[in-house]
Amino acid sequence: MKIAVLGTGGGGRAHAAKLLELGHEVIVGTRDPRATLARTEPDMMGNPPYKEWLADHPGITLATFAEAAAAGELIINGTDGINSVKALTSAGAENLAGKTLVDYAVPFIYNPDVEHPWPTPWGIMPRLEPVDVDSLGEQIQRAFPDAKVVKAFVTQEQDTVVNPRAIGDGDHTMFIAGDHADAKKAVTALLESYGWSDILDLGTLVAARGMEMYAHMHSAIGLALGGHFGVKIVR
Amino acid sequence: MKIAVLGTGGGGRAHAAKLLELGHEVIVGTRDPRATLARTEPDMMGNPPYKEWLADHPGITLATFAEAAAAGELIINGTDGINSVKALTSAGAENLAGKTLVDYAVPFIYNPDVEHPWPTPWGIMPRLEPVDVDSLGEQIQRAFPDAKVVKAFVTQEQDTVVNPRAIGDGDHTMFIAGDHADAKKAVTALLESYGWSDILDLGTLVAARGMEMYAHMHSAIGLALGGHFGVKIVR
Repeated sequence: MKIAVLGTGGGGRAHAAKLLELGHEVIVGTRDPRATLARTEPDMMGNPPYKEWLADHPGITLATFAEAAAAGELIINGTDGINSVKALTSAGAENLAGKTLVDYAVPFIYNPDVEHPWPTPWGIMPRLEPVDVDSLGEQIQRAFPDAKVVKAFVTQEQDTVVNPRAIGDGDHTMFIAGDHADAKKAVTALLESYGWSDILDLGTLVAARGMEMYAHMHSAIGLALGGHFGVKIVR
Repeated sequence: MKIAVLGTGGGGRAHAAKLLELGHEVIVGTRDPRATLARTEPDMMGNPPYKEWLADHPGITLATFAEAAAAGELIINGTDGINSVKALTSAGAENLAGKTLVDYAVPFIYNPDVEHPWPTPWGIMPRLEPVDVDSLGEQIQRAFPDAKVVKAFVTQEQDTVVNPRAIGDGDHTMFIAGDHADAKKAVTALLESYGWSDILDLGTLVAARGMEMYAHMHSAIGLALGGHFGVKIVR
């Protein structure tokens, strides 16, 4: 399958590498491919320059957001939450129409007016915008009504999303939500190919609120354990 | 141990009954004991009149919030989130001072100006207040600085909090957070007596934000499964 991964950060890299390994044709979208390739410093999160990473993953194509989205039959939004609607607008509504759009972004924003006592790997506990009465997943669906948005992956670290068996031999739960049954079926198949066996459909995209808001507890659990973990829903 | 349970709803009843069974002296606090005992109709959540329930649990004392808090060596806040600070104010700061105060309330409020498409057992998906940059647990700690607030129980239904073995033979996780190590130790001992074996300390009370915000995902999971469940953190 032709799969577009929008975003060149750690999450996008993890998905792109896994999808390549699974035999998919992977097109990565970025705002400005030349600028992405010109970078020689690690990114904000400490990932090596994209050019180096790309050299280690022959077969992955780097393109603009729009070129990647046009080529992809399924699209993964791997951009930061704060930039997602903008990035998807660059990708072009016409290139998203009728396609499954997997969104795993958390709409973290850093508000310098709010003091946070909670140290996190990125310094402070950012706040969410939107939160509680709306979600980024729903915002994206409203902005691109012809796309089929599925919220997924959110409750996992990027490297365990694509490698669930690294935690508890894969015996934990992945959550999905969305308004389009066929798109959720496509994402379920993708997740199964990643190695997930317990995939829990939380219903319509409204559930994206809870999935995004879980980010705070996820951070707290990660800080408490000092390492990766999975969430298993025990029936 | 003398334990005060503030609140006469389903959660408070579950804790009071379990604590009685465990041999504790249980004093339940309510705003107006006479009014509570005078009710002949089931409450908003369908629980039978308190007088009936009390008759089935001989040994439990019903008292005012203040009398219960004064008597309790450990205090459980089982009031609705929206009423908690008010109820604890009635209980009296002096009666909470120096004591462990377990809070499991979620600050749900129903905002009639916001339309929610998500049907829940109580009709709509309420919003949280505070959310994201504060929590009810922290509000309570600030309002009663001499109490030792521990946020706990939040990620479970009231009947599985006191009976964890009903789910997956007890192989799931309970979360606690708070700023007072001795109070967390006391709550850990209480949880162990309830049957919990995996109790994860999420750190300071700031983690109450994530625990309360998880309520949305908890609701979504409960609706998806149509029954009780536990959350297990798989390392």
